[in-house]
Amino acid sequence: MPHPNDPKLRSFIDVAPTSDFPIQNLPYGVFSSKDGLAPRIGVAIGDFVLDLWELEQDSRLDVGPLGVFSQPSLNAFMALGPKVWSATRARISELLRSDHPELRDNRELRARALVPMADVRLYMPFAVSGYTDFYSSKEHATNVGVMFRGKDNALQPNWLHMPIGYNGRASTVVVSGTKVRRPRGQLKPPTAEVPSFGACKRLDFELEMGVVVGQASPMGEMLTEKQAEEMIFGFVILNDWSARDIQQWEYVPLGPFQAKAFATSISPWVVTREALEPFRMRGPAQQPEPLAYLKQAQPNNYDLQLDVALRAGAMNEAKTICSTNFKYMYWSSVQQLVHHASSGCAMNVGDLLGSGTISGPEKHQRGSLLEISWNGTEPVELASGVTRTFIEDGDSLVMRGWCQGDGYRVGFGEVEGTIVAAE
Amino acid sequence: MPHPNDPKLRSFIDVAPTSDFPIQNLPYGVFSSKDGLAPRIGVAIGDFVLDLWELEQDSRLDVGPLGVFSQPSLNAFMALGPKVWSATRARISELLRSDHPELRDNRELRARALVPMADVRLYMPFAVSGYTDFYSSKEHATNVGVMFRGKDNALQPNWLHMPIGYNGRASTVVVSGTKVRRPRGQLKPPTAEVPSFGACKRLDFELEMGVVVGQASPMGEMLTEKQAEEMIFGFVILNDWSARDIQQWEYVPLGPFQAKAFATSISPWVVTREALEPFRMRGPAQQPEPLAYLKQAQPNNYDLQLDVALRAGAMNEAKTICSTNFKYMYWSSVQQLVHHASSGCAMNVGDLLGSGTISGPEKHQRGSLLEISWNGTEPVELASGVTRTFIEDGDSLVMRGWCQGDGYRVGFGEVEGTIVAAE
Repeated sequence: MPHPNDPKLRSFIDVAPTSDFPIQNLPYGVFSSKDGLAPRIGVAIGDFVLDLWELEQDSRLDVGPLGVFSQPSLNAFMALGPKVWSATRARISELLRSDHPELRDNRELRARALVPMADVRLYMPFAVSGYTDFYSSKEHATNVGVMFRGKDNALQPNWLHMPIGYNGRASTVVVSGTKVRRPRGQLKPPTAEVPSFGACKRLDFELEMGVVVGQASPMGEMLTEKQAEEMIFGFVILNDWSARDIQQWEYVPLGPFQAKAFATSISPWVVTREALEPFRMRGPAQQPEPLAYLKQAQPNNYDLQLDVALRAGAMNEAKTICSTNFKYMYWSSVQQLVHHASSGCAMNVGDLLGSGTISGPEKHQRGSLLEISWNGTEPVELASGVTRTFIEDGDSLVMRGWCQGDGYRVGFGEVEGTIVAAE
Repeated sequence: MPHPNDPKLRSFIDVAPTSDFPIQNLPYGVFSSKDGLAPRIGVAIGDFVLDLWELEQDSRLDVGPLGVFSQPSLNAFMALGPKVWSATRARISELLRSDHPELRDNRELRARALVPMADVRLYMPFAVSGYTDFYSSKEHATNVGVMFRGKDNALQPNWLHMPIGYNGRASTVVVSGTKVRRPRGQLKPPTAEVPSFGACKRLDFELEMGVVVGQASPMGEMLTEKQAEEMIFGFVILNDWSARDIQQWEYVPLGPFQAKAFATSISPWVVTREALEPFRMRGPAQQPEPLAYLKQAQPNNYDLQLDVALRAGAMNEAKTICSTNFKYMYWSSVQQLVHHASSGCAMNVGDLLGSGTISGPEKHQRGSLLEISWNGTEPVELASGVTRTFIEDGDSLVMRGWCQGDGYRVGFGEVEGTIVAAE
C-alpha cells in the first residue's frame, strides 16, 4: 500500500493543485450539514467533507470503540493514540484513492459520505483542555524588545535559554468565523494620572500556529523529545487577539491576563503531524546550546508559508499585510512541549499550545500590527486613503497557511475573525 | 421551616462543637467507601458522610435530572444554578435535623446513606475547567515587593487599581493527601553565569482560598457585583505550591509558568457560599476608590480563620507557622470574578479562582515561607534543632480554616500535602 504522503497519489475526487485539501493532507474537523444531524467528525478532501461517522456506521472504518466519529470533538479519537491516528489516516487515504474502487464505485455510500464543503458548518474541532501561549520567535521578541526597551536590552536574559510561555484562557478559544467583540479593560496611557475603564484602543492580532496535543502525560514526569513529538496530533493556525493597551497596564509582574482573554481564534481543520512530515526541516541554529533536556536530535521545524490579510469594512478584498514562514521559529513545538512538562506539569488530551507570534527577518514578515506599524508610528496602507495602525471595528482579519509540495499543497484553510464594536 | 444557617439547629447525628461539619455547614465532596461503588457526591456531617446518591435513588432528594449525585464531580449539580443549590441545602438540612423523623427514624436508610468518615476516600470534588490565581493580599504583595524592590516601590503601580492575576495550570490541581513531587526546572542563582537544570531548592507553599465558580457567563459580556456573587458556588482552601527559584528566572516578562505548574492542592470539601453567609463582613477600605465596574455595594469578605502547620519528617506533630484570616484580603472574590470577565472572558462551571496568598498585618500572619523566613534569611524553628527556610523532602504541610459561630464552627477540614524527592 502506498504511503498516504506519497506525492503521486490521486483521489477520485478532483482536487485543484491550489486546494489546501489534496489526498496528501486529510485534515480532521467537526462539521454539520443540511441533513440536520448533530455535529460530527469529517475530513476535508478538495471541495468536500468526508463524513467519518457515515463510514464508521457502514463498517468501513474501524478504530475501536464505535461512535468515536459521531462526537462533536476530536478528543476521544485523539485519546486512542498515534498508532490509531496513523492507521486511520492510511485507511481514509485508501478509501479516497482513484485506484481503489471501494468508495469510488459505491454511488450510494458516496452520496451519503461526501458532503459539499459549501453546505457544511464548521465547529471547534476539539475541546480545549488547557491553552498555553509561547513567545518563541526571536524576531518577534526582538522587535517588541527594541520598541519597549531599546536595542541593547531587546531580548530578556532568559529568552535564549528556554521557550518562554504563559498559561492562556481556554474558555475563549473560538473557531474561525466567530465574531470577536472589542474588549474593554483598564487603560492607562503614559500621559494619564490614573487608569480609566473603556474599550481597547490598540487592538491587535498575533499570527501563530497552534499545536493540538493528542495524548496525556502524567503529573510529576518529564518528556523526552521523542515522547513529546508522538503526543502531537496536529496543528492549526491561531490568531492570538491582543489588547495592547490593556496588556501594557496589567502585565507587570504576573503577565498578560485580560489583554488576551477575550478571544483566540483557530482554523477549523486540524492538519495532522503526519501530513506535515515531508515539510520538516531544521530550525535556526540555537546559540547558546540548549540545556540537555531541551536538545533536539530531530529537525522539528516546518517549511510552512503563512499569510495575513486585513480587510477594512469598506474594502472589497483583503490586503495582505504579512507573509512569513513557520520555519523561522527559534524554539520548536517539541521543545515547547518538553519544557511545559519539565516541572512535572501534567499534559492532557486537547491541550493547545500557541507557538508565539511568527515574525521573520524581513519587514514584510512581521506577524502583528504592533510590529508592522512599529507601535503605531508607521501606519500601513490597505487601500487608497485607508490606513491602519491597529484594528478598527468592522475590520476582518484572515490568516492562511500551507506547505508547498510538488504540484500540490498541504494547507490549513483559513482563520477569519471580524471585530464588532464594544458594548 | 428554619433557615439552614440557624445557629440553633441540631442534627440527630452528634457533632462536637469543634467539628468542622455541623448541620450549619453541609459542604459537598466526592467520596467512595468500602462498598466498592464508584466515587459519588456526599455531604459532610460530623464524623459521617451523607451519601446523596442513596438519597436521590430513594426519592428523598429531587434536584431534576436523575443521577446528578451519582457523578464523580460536582459540575453537573453546580450547573443547575443557585436556586437548586439553595433548595438542596435546605432539604439536606431538614433530613438531618434532630426534630425531623424522616431519616432519623429510618434505620435502614440511615445505614445505607450515612458512611463513617473514617471509611471513605475523598477525591477532587469538581473538574477544574480553568484555574486562575490572583494576588490580592496587600500585606503579601507589600512583603514580596519590599524584599525584591525595596520599601519605596513595594506595590506595583497597577496593584491598587485592579485585582492582579494570571492564568494557572488546571491539569495539576489535586486533592488533599496527594503526594507532591519536588519540581525540577531551570535555576539561575544571581551568582551563576548561566542557568542549569535541576531540582527546585526554594520550594514554598502559599496559603490561599479557592473560589469554585458554579455558573457560566458568556463570552463578550461583563458581570455585575450581584451576578458574580450568584455564580459562586463555594470555597475551598488552596495551597499554591511555588518553586521560588524557578519562578525568579522564568517570570519576566510573561509571569509564572513552570514554577506554579507542578501542583496546586485543594481541600476535599466545598463549603457553600450560603454556609459562609453569617460570616460575611466588609473588607479593608479601598483607597483609591475602585473604578465603577469594581465597586462593591455589599460586604464580600469573610471572617475566616486560617492556620498553616508544617511537619518535618522526623517530627510527631506539625508546628503551626501561620495563623491569619481571610478577612484581610484587599480585593474580594466577587471583585476578582467581575474583573476576570471584564474583557469579555467567558467563565465556566468548574472554574477555580485562587485568592492569592493570604497574609495579615502581623508577623505570625504571613502566608508563605518566603515571607515567614524573609527570603531565607530568618529560619523558622519547628522543633528543637529543626529549622526551615524552605520546604524539604518528606515535609508535610497542613492548612486548616473555619468560621467561628456561637457554639459551632463552619470549617473546611484540611488540605495536606507531603513533598517527595525529585526523580
